[in-house]
Amino acid sequence: MTTRIPILAEITEANSILAENLRAAFAAEGVLVLNLMASPGAGKTTLLERSIAELNGALKIAVIEGDPHTSIDAERIDAAGVKAVEINTGGGCHLEARMIRAALGELDIAGLDLLVIENVGNLICPTGWDLGEDLKVILVSLTEGDDKPLKYPMGFLTADAAVISKVDLEPYVPADRSTMRENALTINPDLAVFEVSSITGEGMDRFLQWIKQRVADKRSRTS
Amino acid sequence: MTTRIPILAEITEANSILAENLRAAFAAEGVLVLNLMASPGAGKTTLLERSIAELNGALKIAVIEGDPHTSIDAERIDAAGVKAVEINTGGGCHLEARMIRAALGELDIAGLDLLVIENVGNLICPTGWDLGEDLKVILVSLTEGDDKPLKYPMGFLTADAAVISKVDLEPYVPADRSTMRENALTINPDLAVFEVSSITGEGMDRFLQWIKQRVADKRSRTS
Repeated sequence: MTTRIPILAEITEANSILAENLRAAFAAEGVLVLNLMASPGAGKTTLLERSIAELNGALKIAVIEGDPHTSIDAERIDAAGVKAVEINTGGGCHLEARMIRAALGELDIAGLDLLVIENVGNLICPTGWDLGEDLKVILVSLTEGDDKPLKYPMGFLTADAAVISKVDLEPYVPADRSTMRENALTINPDLAVFEVSSITGEGMDRFLQWIKQRVADKRSRTS
Repeated sequence: MTTRIPILAEITEANSILAENLRAAFAAEGVLVLNLMASPGAGKTTLLERSIAELNGALKIAVIEGDPHTSIDAERIDAAGVKAVEINTGGGCHLEARMIRAALGELDIAGLDLLVIENVGNLICPTGWDLGEDLKVILVSLTEGDDKPLKYPMGFLTADAAVISKVDLEPYVPADRSTMRENALTINPDLAVFEVSSITGEGMDRFLQWIKQRVADKRSRTS
């Protein structure tokens, strides 16, 4: 790793400068920006689909979709009725601020309440890259096993909220939602932890209430 | 990415040279080496636990466990009754050949039939790093969604086998094992595809038969 660290530090420094520019642009418009991170298949897109449906027009939302390949997720978000901009990383394992800046060329943030950046499915790489977001949300599905916050602590350490998804599958898997919650809070006691099922809707109210409050806070700081 | 690619190319070139040295060392001993890759929580360790139990001493096995943090998995493999060497990457998203070389300082490969390298839980980063293995096995759980081979094709493109895990959960999730199989074969028609449940044991026979045949082939090339 000794040959990589200094080089990576230069790149992440450039990324941080770009991210601060983005943060200023988002602040000027009063749009709340979430960076949503998770393993592949943890249910990021399904959580967004359910959230969009339940918010039912109460917030003006847009989504930036990061994927290594395909536009499957962007099409799903588009079908859910909100603007989606796709970033294909061509196999890259995380989004970077320069990609978000490019995406904003295709997205008018004026008047938006909430911009969700769905990062590439990866529990490790995205955690070190600032995208100018207000809040980092880490999503982890119960089916991945309740030890995951301990084994992959990086995202939990820096996140504002952890969403435990697929809790409807608890009866069928060797994993326990309360153990996962405890493990997440062991890594970061300041985390807001939510237990949800995007299929049954369980726990969505509390999660969406948390988002709505953060959107209102951001608006009040702008106006 | 332009600033990163040449640097990364140098590192991966050094890695490839080391990997070829490892491959020669493994060949001299006639030990079959598998590089097992998957997302976090796809069930790599559980598959290994079940495989070790079902093989029931028929093969002499050792495991190298790659994890960003903790020794939870190495302890599980140790409890299953085979030698496990832990590599903690300190947050790094994949194993590299130099790490395997270091692990071999703590592992006697003489007389082994099978060495399994359980890579870091990540569906992207490990796929570009040769570890001197004979075979790459990509594991993907049905709970991750049947579109994953299309969205994360890198591992499927270069793998010899794809194992679809957690098929016992098919009745409870919006994913279909035959669709996942088709998607994997769309990316790489040469894949051996297995559908297994490490909990119920479904499909384990065929997967273990495949491994035993590869072990026998390797032994016959050595002796």
